[in-house]
Amino acid sequence: MPEASKIHPDQLQDKLAALAQWRLDNAGQSIAREYRFDDFMQAFAFMSEMAIWSEKHDHHPEWFNVYNKVKVTLTTHDAGGLTERDLAWARHADAVFSRSH
Amino acid sequence: MPEASKIHPDQLQDKLAALAQWRLDNAGQSIAREYRFDDFMQAFAFMSEMAIWSEKHDHHPEWFNVYNKVKVTLTTHDAGGLTERDLAWARHADAVFSRSH
Amino acid sequence: MPEASKIHPDQLQDKLAALAQWRLDNAGQSIAREYRFDDFMQAFAFMSEMAIWSEKHDHHPEWFNVYNKVKVTLTTHDAGGLTERDLAWARHADAVFSRSH
Amino acid sequence: MPEASKIHPDQLQDKLAALAQWRLDNAGQSIAREYRFDDFMQAFAFMSEMAIWSEKHDHHPEWFNVYNKVKVTLTTHDAGGLTERDLAWARHADAVFSRSH
Repeated sequence: MPEASKIHPDQLQDKLAALAQWRLDNAGQSIAREYRFDDFMQAFAFMSEMAIWSEKHDHHPEWFNVYNKVKVTLTTHDAGGLTERDLAWARHADAVFSRSH
Repeated sequence: MPEASKIHPDQLQDKLAALAQWRLDNAGQSIAREYRFDDFMQAFAFMSEMAIWSEKHDHHPEWFNVYNKVKVTLTTHDAGGLTERDLAWARHADAVFSRSH
Repeated sequence: MPEASKIHPDQLQDKLAALAQWRLDNAGQSIAREYRFDDFMQAFAFMSEMAIWSEKHDHHPEWFNVYNKVKVTLTTHDAGGLTERDLAWARHADAVFSRSH
Repeated sequence: MPEASKIHPDQLQDKLAALAQWRLDNAGQSIAREYRFDDFMQAFAFMSEMAIWSEKHDHHPEWFNVYNKVKVTLTTHDAGGLTERDLAWARHADAVFSRSH
């Protein structure tokens, strides 16, 4: 798992460029994205795959689901902001979504 | 699945008496409860079981998870408030939680 | 859910033509297919989606998993052979696999 | 995760004493157990929890499910037989089953 030290703000924009669907909060402490699927079953399959990945990498999202929507917020509480662990989660989730959608 | 007509406010308190852990919102339109588990794996097992139940009964929660916590909000949008479908979901989830916790 | 009467052997070959990856057993009573995924997480995401679908349609597979492989056998015990319910399961699983793989 | 060296046959009986529901195969290379649940939803919740655990500990079962039954076979292929990793899986699964059943 990537190191869990907070990413310097100067580096953050570059790193977020490849995560175009994610929004940085105003305080620059977390990123969020909403995924939309065709139905609840597809949404929950995505959650199941990312649940396993999250536990394996010991980094868990805050996520909200209703029917076909999954809204995710990522931050690293121990570091007080965004770390490479959040970016790794976001990149993997985007790849799972691209593949499965 | 129980009928999806809105429960009359006069009847709601009686029906909610058996769901002591659930809170009615101020507008009386939804109920919410937070479940706490020992860890993420237990929380997600609960979500997996309730995900299957939800799709089977065609009634889906709004739910939020972070690590060992699952916060659920229930309402029936088609009826503009609480119906027996919400109460059935809450009762079943409480039973799953009691059994698995 | 499709009707659960046994499909006449004369009709079976036609119906199985669209399920090219599935093998009919020698007795003509069940069909089987193995799916291979990139890893365990993808395999289990597929199983999660099909688990929900199975319960929703009240038709459950016999399935075996080890790591990235999922082997499925379908039959309708009540009908003593293959029914449209089995074909519906196979078609949906193939669609989920095509989409997610 | 426990070490993955094959357990000496002299030690195996002692170690299996606490896993009374598991059967050792004739060659002494694997152990197997069947779990029975009230319904498919409970069985799959168990599988979801153990799926996460398996990936986290990088040790995956061979398992078969049909409706409320989950049959598990454990061995460590790299070691050519049973290791502490198999016993850890069996112990954890028994604990999850005891808790959730």
